[in-house]
Amino acid sequence: MTAAFPLTAPHPLLYDDILRRAFAEDLGRGGDLTTEAIVAPDAAGRGVIAARKPGVVAGLAVASRAFELFDPAVRFGAALCDGTRVEAGQVLASVEGPARSLLTAERTALNLLGRLSGIATVTAEVVTLVAGTGAAVTCTRKTTPGLRVLEKYAVRAGGGVNHRFGLDDAVLVKDNHLVLAGSVTEAVRRVRARAGHMVKIEVEVDSLEQLDELLEVGADAVLLDNLGPDRLRAGVERVAGRLITEASGGITPATARPVAESGVDLMSIGWLTHSAPNLDVGLDL
Amino acid sequence: MTAAFPLTAPHPLLYDDILRRAFAEDLGRGGDLTTEAIVAPDAAGRGVIAARKPGVVAGLAVASRAFELFDPAVRFGAALCDGTRVEAGQVLASVEGPARSLLTAERTALNLLGRLSGIATVTAEVVTLVAGTGAAVTCTRKTTPGLRVLEKYAVRAGGGVNHRFGLDDAVLVKDNHLVLAGSVTEAVRRVRARAGHMVKIEVEVDSLEQLDELLEVGADAVLLDNLGPDRLRAGVERVAGRLITEASGGITPATARPVAESGVDLMSIGWLTHSAPNLDVGLDL
Amino acid sequence: MTAAFPLTAPHPLLYDDILRRAFAEDLGRGGDLTTEAIVAPDAAGRGVIAARKPGVVAGLAVASRAFELFDPAVRFGAALCDGTRVEAGQVLASVEGPARSLLTAERTALNLLGRLSGIATVTAEVVTLVAGTGAAVTCTRKTTPGLRVLEKYAVRAGGGVNHRFGLDDAVLVKDNHLVLAGSVTEAVRRVRARAGHMVKIEVEVDSLEQLDELLEVGADAVLLDNLGPDRLRAGVERVAGRLITEASGGITPATARPVAESGVDLMSIGWLTHSAPNLDVGLDL
Amino acid sequence: MTAAFPLTAPHPLLYDDILRRAFAEDLGRGGDLTTEAIVAPDAAGRGVIAARKPGVVAGLAVASRAFELFDPAVRFGAALCDGTRVEAGQVLASVEGPARSLLTAERTALNLLGRLSGIATVTAEVVTLVAGTGAAVTCTRKTTPGLRVLEKYAVRAGGGVNHRFGLDDAVLVKDNHLVLAGSVTEAVRRVRARAGHMVKIEVEVDSLEQLDELLEVGADAVLLDNLGPDRLRAGVERVAGRLITEASGGITPATARPVAESGVDLMSIGWLTHSAPNLDVGLDL
Amino acid sequence: MTAAFPLTAPHPLLYDDILRRAFAEDLGRGGDLTTEAIVAPDAAGRGVIAARKPGVVAGLAVASRAFELFDPAVRFGAALCDGTRVEAGQVLASVEGPARSLLTAERTALNLLGRLSGIATVTAEVVTLVAGTGAAVTCTRKTTPGLRVLEKYAVRAGGGVNHRFGLDDAVLVKDNHLVLAGSVTEAVRRVRARAGHMVKIEVEVDSLEQLDELLEVGADAVLLDNLGPDRLRAGVERVAGRLITEASGGITPATARPVAESGVDLMSIGWLTHSAPNLDVGLDL
Amino acid sequence: MTAAFPLTAPHPLLYDDILRRAFAEDLGRGGDLTTEAIVAPDAAGRGVIAARKPGVVAGLAVASRAFELFDPAVRFGAALCDGTRVEAGQVLASVEGPARSLLTAERTALNLLGRLSGIATVTAEVVTLVAGTGAAVTCTRKTTPGLRVLEKYAVRAGGGVNHRFGLDDAVLVKDNHLVLAGSVTEAVRRVRARAGHMVKIEVEVDSLEQLDELLEVGADAVLLDNLGPDRLRAGVERVAGRLITEASGGITPATARPVAESGVDLMSIGWLTHSAPNLDVGLDL
Repeated sequence: MTAAFPLTAPHPLLYDDILRRAFAEDLGRGGDLTTEAIVAPDAAGRGVIAARKPGVVAGLAVASRAFELFDPAVRFGAALCDGTRVEAGQVLASVEGPARSLLTAERTALNLLGRLSGIATVTAEVVTLVAGTGAAVTCTRKTTPGLRVLEKYAVRAGGGVNHRFGLDDAVLVKDNHLVLAGSVTEAVRRVRARAGHMVKIEVEVDSLEQLDELLEVGADAVLLDNLGPDRLRAGVERVAGRLITEASGGITPATARPVAESGVDLMSIGWLTHSAPNLDVGLDL
Repeated sequence: MTAAFPLTAPHPLLYDDILRRAFAEDLGRGGDLTTEAIVAPDAAGRGVIAARKPGVVAGLAVASRAFELFDPAVRFGAALCDGTRVEAGQVLASVEGPARSLLTAERTALNLLGRLSGIATVTAEVVTLVAGTGAAVTCTRKTTPGLRVLEKYAVRAGGGVNHRFGLDDAVLVKDNHLVLAGSVTEAVRRVRARAGHMVKIEVEVDSLEQLDELLEVGADAVLLDNLGPDRLRAGVERVAGRLITEASGGITPATARPVAESGVDLMSIGWLTHSAPNLDVGLDL
Repeated sequence: MTAAFPLTAPHPLLYDDILRRAFAEDLGRGGDLTTEAIVAPDAAGRGVIAARKPGVVAGLAVASRAFELFDPAVRFGAALCDGTRVEAGQVLASVEGPARSLLTAERTALNLLGRLSGIATVTAEVVTLVAGTGAAVTCTRKTTPGLRVLEKYAVRAGGGVNHRFGLDDAVLVKDNHLVLAGSVTEAVRRVRARAGHMVKIEVEVDSLEQLDELLEVGADAVLLDNLGPDRLRAGVERVAGRLITEASGGITPATARPVAESGVDLMSIGWLTHSAPNLDVGLDL
Repeated sequence: MTAAFPLTAPHPLLYDDILRRAFAEDLGRGGDLTTEAIVAPDAAGRGVIAARKPGVVAGLAVASRAFELFDPAVRFGAALCDGTRVEAGQVLASVEGPARSLLTAERTALNLLGRLSGIATVTAEVVTLVAGTGAAVTCTRKTTPGLRVLEKYAVRAGGGVNHRFGLDDAVLVKDNHLVLAGSVTEAVRRVRARAGHMVKIEVEVDSLEQLDELLEVGADAVLLDNLGPDRLRAGVERVAGRLITEASGGITPATARPVAESGVDLMSIGWLTHSAPNLDVGLDL
Repeated sequence: MTAAFPLTAPHPLLYDDILRRAFAEDLGRGGDLTTEAIVAPDAAGRGVIAARKPGVVAGLAVASRAFELFDPAVRFGAALCDGTRVEAGQVLASVEGPARSLLTAERTALNLLGRLSGIATVTAEVVTLVAGTGAAVTCTRKTTPGLRVLEKYAVRAGGGVNHRFGLDDAVLVKDNHLVLAGSVTEAVRRVRARAGHMVKIEVEVDSLEQLDELLEVGADAVLLDNLGPDRLRAGVERVAGRLITEASGGITPATARPVAESGVDLMSIGWLTHSAPNLDVGLDL
Repeated sequence: MTAAFPLTAPHPLLYDDILRRAFAEDLGRGGDLTTEAIVAPDAAGRGVIAARKPGVVAGLAVASRAFELFDPAVRFGAALCDGTRVEAGQVLASVEGPARSLLTAERTALNLLGRLSGIATVTAEVVTLVAGTGAAVTCTRKTTPGLRVLEKYAVRAGGGVNHRFGLDDAVLVKDNHLVLAGSVTEAVRRVRARAGHMVKIEVEVDSLEQLDELLEVGADAVLLDNLGPDRLRAGVERVAGRLITEASGGITPATARPVAESGVDLMSIGWLTHSAPNLDVGLDL
């Protein structure tokens, strides 16, 4: 299913504070001593932001907004769209404006662009690994504190789909909850009595017995945790389309394909957001 | 040189806002639907936070403060100090208190603990690689936006030393600045006229000729960028102790030792903070 | 379906800022001139918060937190739980502590308690009106700016269920969206390609023809807007359980019962939050 | 006494944060899923904001600012001024710009416009009821937490006058204060010793005896609480212009005229702000 | 007229943000490097805060709160009350607690205590100069941006009375307003039509002719600007108690007494807040 | 050493919040009652900001930004640069725009301009007093809470140089630290083990014996506290260029020259920031 329109970056109202805090921590109380000392206030500059390594880009609108927030006189021209796969050396955007502003705002803009592109890149790698299987790649709540809105977007830019954004927009019953509820059946009964009609319910199971119990009581989705490809396949067969099926637990590039071939609808991977290395991007004036 | 006292975590005034924002993005507008539905309000719980992989721990005080901020009734007992190397399975801390609070605050606390420990772990790996050479390992401004104070601390927990915190606490003249100044000599002249007497000045050079020019004009430190072990060694010899010498540029675990053996005082590595994978830590109730 | 545990008020992390801003706008820059002038700093006071009119209470924990935030020395003892129906004159809580704090913090605490109880009261009235029909009562996004988290809670306290909290936790395709999409079918196709697997999709229809088209393409819920009892009943029959059915549009206390008897699962009512009169509550020292 | 110039809306510096928080709670962490999925990024739209019911308008500048803050490309054209009485169906403003922005920002803008217009409408109703009597209609501190600056403005738009804005800009000695002071005389003595020379002093009395005592000691204004028309008239006569007279306590549309005809200068009514139903306003694209 | 109770310091809700920002700018991103390096984490300390010069103290509760906010383990014992005149060397308070906390929080606490005491001191000097004349000493809006609530309090601690807190709690018609209104009469007419009944009106006049016009039209207070003692006395005589009289304009310690002897009710002095030197206070461990 | 470029004012990202808070405390909840009542909304105004006393100007960009933030329609034209010495009556800037905005924003803009110019003025006075001696004038951490970034800038505008900005950008070992460390040698050892390579270390000594010990162990700078000109000169001679020398303690205009002639590199003076009287600046429409 392809989206009707290109990916939409989050509205700046959702991340301007992230940018302001980033500038505040970088400028400190004295500003950019080096640039103020060396660069003439009226010097103009231009340059390009380029990838130093291959990857998938995410965050160009965020980088653009960073320069704009720092100095509206900087012009930022994106050379491509978020979600595009780029080669090492490929130009992502051009920037032009007061040289001081380019130099001082550069790091904040690139730190975000590199991080988001890093997430998009590893997401795209897994998406490619499982291409053709019908399994989607999704993320978790293991995001960098304060950056969830942007990191969830980066997953979408990499071709993944978003899991819930937080604790309040969907129910996910985990193993600890099951222990405290006593059974899958009781857990589902309790969440149904609490969650509104527009909230989906997913339950984590770690055995086929639990899965059978869940199928009996019903839900929207099941998280099949650490089952291994064989039991995953068995699980998917038992579900027979009655629940959305999601695999999780220790999925690596090496195991992604076998997991996907089990027939699950999705696989969720924490390291897409918590351990993706930055994509190396640089600004050449 | 060993510090007189154990590592001191940042004061909560420096990161409470990070925690509040992290909870806000996780709780959203509806709170933890699942836990509220399933767990009795008066249920008590206890558990341990343990490493799932070996590494170096950082952020225990931050995790403790996260639980405290969420619910002062939670008791957090650290089993060891930040900076300690741990094995897979080793217990880092115990938590005890209202079961709901443990379950709801868990992710925010672990996201930070995992990230900071990840940075400490890779830092410690490099520190170990260069042990005995006299070279220290230092970080850059390539930190996660908004988390610099914590990530710089994690580098210290891993045995590294901090480079400047931002643009205002030290001067670092980079290649782009040199181009705009016209020469190393002119760049240094300009920064001396601007920087206060308590601000150190470092200049990046990418050739031995530039280094000679810098030695002529003087500074506090030199950043020897992308020189390679041989020219690094030649550079260190020419400096002969008159400047602090720092190597940078593409240093990997594989090249760290040769770089360190060139005799430099420090090597700075961006990926300590921008690409360290989280240390896998979990809460077992 | 009854919840396993009593209603849980939102976590203070979700509304402390509301309280701080309320105190800030009331204290201004000079504080409570009258109380400071007249009441001795060491005078103690005690009193009860009572309903002046019958209704359903919501916000006791919020009122308690208001006093605590203003002065931790105030003790607040709730006499009953949120969601309780009370008579005029019935005591809701007792307060005890420094007389100055009681007098100065009173208005902020009561403004919130009165508003939330007002919402709970009108919600409960509609819930009572439709009792036995199987129809639940739900709210909309027509909440007071800045207070959504609390007002949504008040709806739950009144026996209602929450609709989505915002634009991001569920899809609701409205008439304007349908016009821009061209058809129900195309609209659903587009949202399916965008929304994650944990997001429910509801579509507003204003005719049985549109409903038929929606049944063809499928969704999680349908909003039957302004159809009137007869067409509502017809709609519910056609749906035959395949979608959650929600009635909306100009529902009043007079029409609530007939609407409910059409067999819909829910009815959504904007005035629960945007036009509920405060429940009159007072503090008697 | 007519004002020299049209009513002036509050400066955006006083309410931009209200708008930002309102957008934040509506956009959540994922933005407007429905609109992003369905509406083309370059689709333009235009529409009118119209009243669905008759009333008095307040908040057009606030609604305009909401659209501007969300997207400066939206053009908002007010068709009339705040304080204008409108019929059902009457157009209040036109909006034009990116269709996505119109759809996403609509609810926040209308929630505020509807609420403020609701307050202006009930205020104007009471003002009309007492027309010709010389009594002005005024508000209280029973406003929605966080919105006082806007709600006080809405009272002015409805033809009312503002009472004090908080606890620090005027003294109002209430019954509880009198009890703690021991007497009207002592209370006034105490506040005079504390309040600056630019602060007015009002005292609540609930009997003619207290009024006599107040006239003896002097003040700027008297709040005649729950006296009933006859005693109110007697009170006004005794005051004989020496104090501003204000009636309060349980004033309803039914009792407003008799109260006003007692000759009081003002009547204060809490429900103008705490219980006014929203004026129904809608956006038709 | 003496107040019934001792001076009350502002509620911490009104200045905690001032303290947090002060700590943030002092701790920066790295905290107190010196103290962390040198002082053992478990070292305890005690000390006294003493005046180095004679003056009047203000801000002890603020200083106490600063230490408490930084570290609740610090105990602060005030030796006297705000508003007390102290000699050089006199102890103002004792502090006891973790030595690190005392050293790190000291500067923030003392910066505020010194500034507020400085304002109280100069205020008290003028109050003493005019003692017995019946003239009170008052302040202006020329306060340090962000600190008005505290600086207005310091004026009270010095024995002065507060003028309005801002632009919204009282009307002050100044020369520029008069020019734009055309006349004193028209200006007063306009403000009466706008200001609520609880707002006092003061008009600045710079000639006796303007004063006559003001007496004709009426107001609450008159600001006699730059009139000189003789015309001041003439003005006070003409007013004959019908207005509060306030002198302003270039009042110095040398001219304060003659101004006061003119019979004015108050004299307002900008330099009480904008140019008072700090009172020198220090912490001796 | 002259700077290559004119003084650069801090980036607005570093002080916009200061301006917003200043406007918030001045506008309160009701805005500028007087101006709204008297001045027509479409009245235009123009005026000049002029010095009423001679001095050195600082903060023109800040004042300009204040007007811009309040109303982008105001045009502010600076007549000269920060750091310029002006005569009484000299025009500093022109302003033009809506008369209401000029009148309402005036006080906030002038309060900051006056304060910063006051600091620049006293700094320049000391700089002039010591001209030709080679001693620079520097500031301390005794700044107004919340305004450090601006006040440090004002010192530069007056020709001074900045000492450290906070506790984290340089080490300053003071007398209390020395007591706790036991000796100068041990103190230096401890800070070296903690401070990063880009952090300078200064130690306060109050005797020549301590100085000798410091010269033995080494550091970047020495603070010679309260030594008096003779011992200062002896100290400078012993240092012989091995440390930056800074004099402090009770330096007054009368003693500044003798202190400077001792040969020290800098003298630090707290009252530059904590006790400078405002420069009197006014707006004439």
